Amino acid sequence: MNTPIVILNYKTYLESSGKKALELAYALESASEESGITMVASPQVADIYRIKEKTSLPIFAQHIDPITPGGHTGSNLIETLVEAGISGSLINHSENRMKLADIDDVVQLCKAHNIESCVCTNNIATSKAIATFNPDAVAVEPPELIGTGIPVSQAQPEVVEDSVNEVKSINKDIKVLCGAGISTGDDMRAAMDLGADGVLLASGIVKAENPKNALLDLVSKL
Amino acid sequence: MNTPIVILNYKTYLESSGKKALELAYALESASEESGITMVASPQVADIYRIKEKTSLPIFAQHIDPITPGGHTGSNLIETLVEAGISGSLINHSENRMKLADIDDVVQLCKAHNIESCVCTNNIATSKAIATFNPDAVAVEPPELIGTGIPVSQAQPEVVEDSVNEVKSINKDIKVLCGAGISTGDDMRAAMDLGADGVLLASGIVKAENPKNALLDLVSKL
Amino acid sequence: MNTPIVILNYKTYLESSGKKALELAYALESASEESGITMVASPQVADIYRIKEKTSLPIFAQHIDPITPGGHTGSNLIETLVEAGISGSLINHSENRMKLADIDDVVQLCKAHNIESCVCTNNIATSKAIATFNPDAVAVEPPELIGTGIPVSQAQPEVVEDSVNEVKSINKDIKVLCGAGISTGDDMRAAMDLGADGVLLASGIVKAENPKNALLDLVSKL
Amino acid sequence: MNTPIVILNYKTYLESSGKKALELAYALESASEESGITMVASPQVADIYRIKEKTSLPIFAQHIDPITPGGHTGSNLIETLVEAGISGSLINHSENRMKLADIDDVVQLCKAHNIESCVCTNNIATSKAIATFNPDAVAVEPPELIGTGIPVSQAQPEVVEDSVNEVKSINKDIKVLCGAGISTGDDMRAAMDLGADGVLLASGIVKAENPKNALLDLVSKL
Repeated sequence: MNTPIVILNYKTYLESSGKKALELAYALESASEESGITMVASPQVADIYRIKEKTSLPIFAQHIDPITPGGHTGSNLIETLVEAGISGSLINHSENRMKLADIDDVVQLCKAHNIESCVCTNNIATSKAIATFNPDAVAVEPPELIGTGIPVSQAQPEVVEDSVNEVKSINKDIKVLCGAGISTGDDMRAAMDLGADGVLLASGIVKAENPKNALLDLVSKL
Repeated sequence: MNTPIVILNYKTYLESSGKKALELAYALESASEESGITMVASPQVADIYRIKEKTSLPIFAQHIDPITPGGHTGSNLIETLVEAGISGSLINHSENRMKLADIDDVVQLCKAHNIESCVCTNNIATSKAIATFNPDAVAVEPPELIGTGIPVSQAQPEVVEDSVNEVKSINKDIKVLCGAGISTGDDMRAAMDLGADGVLLASGIVKAENPKNALLDLVSKL
Repeated sequence: MNTPIVILNYKTYLESSGKKALELAYALESASEESGITMVASPQVADIYRIKEKTSLPIFAQHIDPITPGGHTGSNLIETLVEAGISGSLINHSENRMKLADIDDVVQLCKAHNIESCVCTNNIATSKAIATFNPDAVAVEPPELIGTGIPVSQAQPEVVEDSVNEVKSINKDIKVLCGAGISTGDDMRAAMDLGADGVLLASGIVKAENPKNALLDLVSKL
Repeated sequence: MNTPIVILNYKTYLESSGKKALELAYALESASEESGITMVASPQVADIYRIKEKTSLPIFAQHIDPITPGGHTGSNLIETLVEAGISGSLINHSENRMKLADIDDVVQLCKAHNIESCVCTNNIATSKAIATFNPDAVAVEPPELIGTGIPVSQAQPEVVEDSVNEVKSINKDIKVLCGAGISTGDDMRAAMDLGADGVLLASGIVKAENPKNALLDLVSKL
């Protein structure tokens, strides 16, 4: 995981589904090449394979089920997701919160399969708790700011700064990403100045008129 | 949905994931062509697109989340699944039981998107309740028999027979499938004799040494 | 269950917890005696025993877990709730929606323990589905109206009327209660005129300055 | 929380429900007085009030919902549980696992209400993660040993020892309890020798012919 890093959570918007998921991947790939900044696509599961076929982007799942091969109808096996093309996954996103024991299991599954784990957290306390699992990254996102367009780096800078401090005090190699409300170059610059190693973002880019330009703007002040 | 119908639930076995999911789809396609019996693949979400690209099989999702476009990280939108290639879905499988209101929502979503809905139930009472939603099919599977190899048609024939009667008394056009423990031609024959319109099966075929032959055997007594 | 019936869902308000739960029970008991209308208290589990000790009100649990005796830490056994004093239970409230198979299990548990079951539903379709389980009552509450003070009998009269028709067409002995937004005598009168056998209400009474008077007003137009 | 401490999880057995819950409380009270060891009852919610009325035992809830006053039908408010008589709670028991953010919330609720928090964990990694929340106690219970009668102190002594070390390295004031399979004096002695501050136990005592004698035996080698 080269830093600074930009992870784009596609969520389940029509603007980031199917063919449009692929178009968004092209935008990410192109913005990444032009800027030299690592950009990761995190699409819905059904779109992973076709994005992998057509781009060389790193792809993260939005979630991995805490299961091993067997009878788990409706779930997704990590082995299947890796074969489809992921090199990492978001874990415990605020729209898909997981049980503590399951987060532990999935971080271990990621390590066993040599893929990257980025665990989402909602505050400083849970960021520190998750750091003890030694994931590759922690993305802190106060849930009350998600989707608001109000950047956490501005509304609650101490959440970012203290999360960075607490996480690095447990293990300095864990990356800390800043989520919730990030969309502009100023937002990302502010996040980096607070000690973040990158950003996790969603609707600000997915719903932009020109996602590639929005991405280039995002990284323009690094 | 032409009957008799065979739906193969791939679940999350290694034998039905990734490349092997595709091989299993070829076996289904070939067995369907040779026998003239409708066969449906129900793979993990990550494998839907590649099976659709390479075969003309009908594909069912194993589950659809009760959501509409928006912020639902880690879920799968019906629009995305349809674009990837599904023409129907299992709903409320015993390994993924759903809330009543969510089953209603997903059956309605399937109707709105013109895809087929096959709701799994665990006994006669829930089969009748689900029939009031008018899905395309109900698949009754006593959970204590799933994965045992003991066919419900033999262990609890009255569950199949009474489910057929109760469902058809609500709406005679709803298909009733028989699940749990079905794997041989005798099992499927017995299910049809009890009034079933087809079968939902999984490990008996997925883990067979030669799935195509196992499928041909399954439909050999129709 | 004598009709018309008034069930008061205490929910988890401070105004209906602990000593105040008991005071509210006294108000219900007194209003019931003065009006001759059956009134049921549905308090939090921790308050059931003390209300039973001090009043002769019928008490419903707000929820029953779909379990039998064994290792289920944090759950509540129906046997324990009955011994504490309940004579019935709400099931599947919109703030605590249950899986279809679990609703079936809990309705059966209620029958086995000779207590009354009142299953909450969100629309006409789920009301009809639940009627096939033959509970003692169905309480229909469009979730978008709960807590709004806008009575369903006024905003969506057809939901009440059609739920009554569909439920009674399955089993005419099932009572249909009207929930969501009910608080005044006019609201209850309108609900009864639409065919309801009673009402399920909450904040309108719990948060009233004088709950007894609010209850007497509620039943003043019957 | 005086140590050594014995917490008895009543779970949802018939042997520990209703009147029998009270009898078990008398056994705990009597064994505690005779031995001088702190013993805590953790009954079902419906039995908290009557145990509080009749004994002076410390009482823990088996679970607290992560809610504040409002519309949460079927849940239990911490305020109501405290008023009924609890002075602490188990949190995240393996039979009732919670989401990470909810564990954080409930530990904070316990602190705000001045009651004790005992968070259950399934292994060394989750014990360490929970320690960062600074609860009063962590009870480590490998789920595969719960209810087996095989004491964790014997089957996996390193789980107890390493959990103690990891938890105390985060905050030396957090008590570490040993759960899963403990029932005899030798089991408890072994747990204490591995560094535990007490034990969390259930069926071994609940189902004993004479629970008081079983409790006295349990603490006989301290």
